[in-house]
Amino acid sequence: MSARAGIIVTGTEVLSGQVADRNGPWVAARLLEMGVDVAHVLICGDRPADLAAQLRFLGEAGVDLIVTTGGLGPTADDLTVATVADARGLPLSLDPELEERIATIIRDWRGLDPSAAFSDAMAAGIAKQAHVPAGAEPIEPTGTAPGVAIAGDGRRPAVLILPGPPGELRRMWPQALSTRAVHEALAGREDLQHDTIRAYGLSEADLAETLREAETSVDGFDSLEITTCMRDGEVEIDTRYPAAAATAEQSLVTLLTDRHGDRFFSTDGATLDDMLARVLARRTVATAESCTGGMVAARLTDRAGSSAYVLGGVVSYANEVKTGVLGVPPALIAELGAVSEPVAGAMAEGARARTGADIAVSTSGIAGPGGAVPGKPVGTVCFGLAVDGRDTVTVTRRFPGDRDTVRRLATTYALHLVLEAAQDS
Amino acid sequence: MSARAGIIVTGTEVLSGQVADRNGPWVAARLLEMGVDVAHVLICGDRPADLAAQLRFLGEAGVDLIVTTGGLGPTADDLTVATVADARGLPLSLDPELEERIATIIRDWRGLDPSAAFSDAMAAGIAKQAHVPAGAEPIEPTGTAPGVAIAGDGRRPAVLILPGPPGELRRMWPQALSTRAVHEALAGREDLQHDTIRAYGLSEADLAETLREAETSVDGFDSLEITTCMRDGEVEIDTRYPAAAATAEQSLVTLLTDRHGDRFFSTDGATLDDMLARVLARRTVATAESCTGGMVAARLTDRAGSSAYVLGGVVSYANEVKTGVLGVPPALIAELGAVSEPVAGAMAEGARARTGADIAVSTSGIAGPGGAVPGKPVGTVCFGLAVDGRDTVTVTRRFPGDRDTVRRLATTYALHLVLEAAQDS
Repeated sequence: MSARAGIIVTGTEVLSGQVADRNGPWVAARLLEMGVDVAHVLICGDRPADLAAQLRFLGEAGVDLIVTTGGLGPTADDLTVATVADARGLPLSLDPELEERIATIIRDWRGLDPSAAFSDAMAAGIAKQAHVPAGAEPIEPTGTAPGVAIAGDGRRPAVLILPGPPGELRRMWPQALSTRAVHEALAGREDLQHDTIRAYGLSEADLAETLREAETSVDGFDSLEITTCMRDGEVEIDTRYPAAAATAEQSLVTLLTDRHGDRFFSTDGATLDDMLARVLARRTVATAESCTGGMVAARLTDRAGSSAYVLGGVVSYANEVKTGVLGVPPALIAELGAVSEPVAGAMAEGARARTGADIAVSTSGIAGPGGAVPGKPVGTVCFGLAVDGRDTVTVTRRFPGDRDTVRRLATTYALHLVLEAAQDS
Repeated sequence: MSARAGIIVTGTEVLSGQVADRNGPWVAARLLEMGVDVAHVLICGDRPADLAAQLRFLGEAGVDLIVTTGGLGPTADDLTVATVADARGLPLSLDPELEERIATIIRDWRGLDPSAAFSDAMAAGIAKQAHVPAGAEPIEPTGTAPGVAIAGDGRRPAVLILPGPPGELRRMWPQALSTRAVHEALAGREDLQHDTIRAYGLSEADLAETLREAETSVDGFDSLEITTCMRDGEVEIDTRYPAAAATAEQSLVTLLTDRHGDRFFSTDGATLDDMLARVLARRTVATAESCTGGMVAARLTDRAGSSAYVLGGVVSYANEVKTGVLGVPPALIAELGAVSEPVAGAMAEGARARTGADIAVSTSGIAGPGGAVPGKPVGTVCFGLAVDGRDTVTVTRRFPGDRDTVRRLATTYALHLVLEAAQDS
């Protein structure tokens, strides 16, 4: 049995959908990498009763470790430590040294003198953050809020209390893992193996058909936990299995490769972005974007070190920018419209000419909801790919969905064009 | 009492952090707009036992409505309908008309003849999707998967089962709300009022101080549910309150405005993006981005109708693009470095000159983790703002956090520069 964990994300702004949660997925991915089985991710607001109910639920679900995020700030709606302490029957007490360290951090931030006094309200906030449940291990702040680790007691799981700001949480993670509470909770776990295959242009229905076949043809199929996920035109096939089921996993991979291998772009866990970084190591790339409005460039530059291969790009939203900056012939736009393969081709060539990149990709399309013209419904996107020493190629796709979906599908498609071009050369 | 709801997001790919959940926040925001109090958002994988445990938990938490998303596909790991039916003791049976409608959708998608037969595996997938629990209302598919609405029975809450692909879910929502099950679950609710103030450049600590003061100075403070959230340098102050507490809410807003009004940029619920769309209605804008790599342009063009005011931009990641496309003097870069205010100013002016926009904003910075030089640590970002008829202004900021955080903080800062410039003119 591998260790099981549950994650509680607190914050009314996350619960109400106003802010996307960046902590739950991050913590889940880290635990999974360690072979810990994440059973539940729960989001609750800043109400103590709801948090207490979620803590009880995870205890009853038999997890070994609960990780909470958020609710450690100085404001009155930050109640995580007090609520967990109450649920565990642990009295809270002030840690004066911790209080002083938090005060020092705040003085440093504000450029205050070491002897500067705080207002009563500020001092109250600092004191609140320096309260630790009896027997718990405080974790050194990476912002102003300390984390807290509470060991399991045989009957109830360990609780690791982490701050909400994603940067603070991530910086605190290594230290959090080294607490006694977390060590004990995860001791003696059996690692689950984890394989990921990623494909582009493979329909979920065709994949489902192959998996149904695998149910009967793959010996030991039942010991594999297979998840398939369609996202932005990519299909991810994720398998988790105990070490004893490695042969079954291998048979499954063989079957999948036989049926759909030509659609695979990664079999070692690498994402599209990882693959791009690999193949672009000795090539340079540029973009010319209309409907994606900078999303292709933003995604390419998301990765540290991308300045080695991304030269830049042009967001040519207005036709004047297509002609003036990228050198697209105005007559081409007047005759065929901006959303046309010849214009997309000229955009890519223009981006390559302006930046000197080896590879340039372009997008010109109708993301919607408005803008459709006869023969070019919403979702129509033309792509151009200009590669050093080769003929420029263009292609038109029609993507389903709303504006955001069309833009994301077009971004992924453009990046797959770059990946294929760089792999072919 | 307002009606209470819980949301269950299913999918191992979401639980494991590989895919960001787009449904939970969307459904939560819609329910909140309707005055429904969302108590819990729970994420579970594709294991029936974990889903069943979450259904029980929400039932015990006393919610009136459970909304589930995902797990309605044709593959064997899609088990939501069967698990909910089992939890409620409702037998599943095939709805032959629904089966035929799904078959028609798939034939249409694949361009098949109306009489074309499916493979056994495909037919089994369609039949699976056409099974409905006894007494439940099927909801017409907006992809291939029908939704299901199950009425509450006095003892247990209503359950609304929706598909996982965000586009399908959103298209199905109006129809889902019109089911008898949802109507009954939300009948007789009292609407909660909801106010949002957004500020930029206001520290959470200063805000906490004002809120502590409000605890004693605002009559009826206890009936306000206040959430504060710091995100990308913005602070959002969210208050939910029953109609009877409107006077208390007004006193709070007066106090906040008195103390921090100069930092407010929105008091009517509008986001930064909403505000930009408003102020740019009669202006045009362009971008010149280095460290943000297209994120500013992507965010500006995220909104339908943005082509009316976004002309385009240049992603000048390489210095050659800064000089060649934007016309930044090479000597300036050689002398002061690309991350310098004069270069940022020249980038903004270059973007304005190349596109003819009224306003151009630029970013040039060190997002990290590498790239720091003496005097310019990671997080240093220079901004330029060139506005028609005004002197170009530049500013340098140092943002905390990792690469992604620095890029997001810089994007938000650049957009606030544009907002202020457009408001001032």
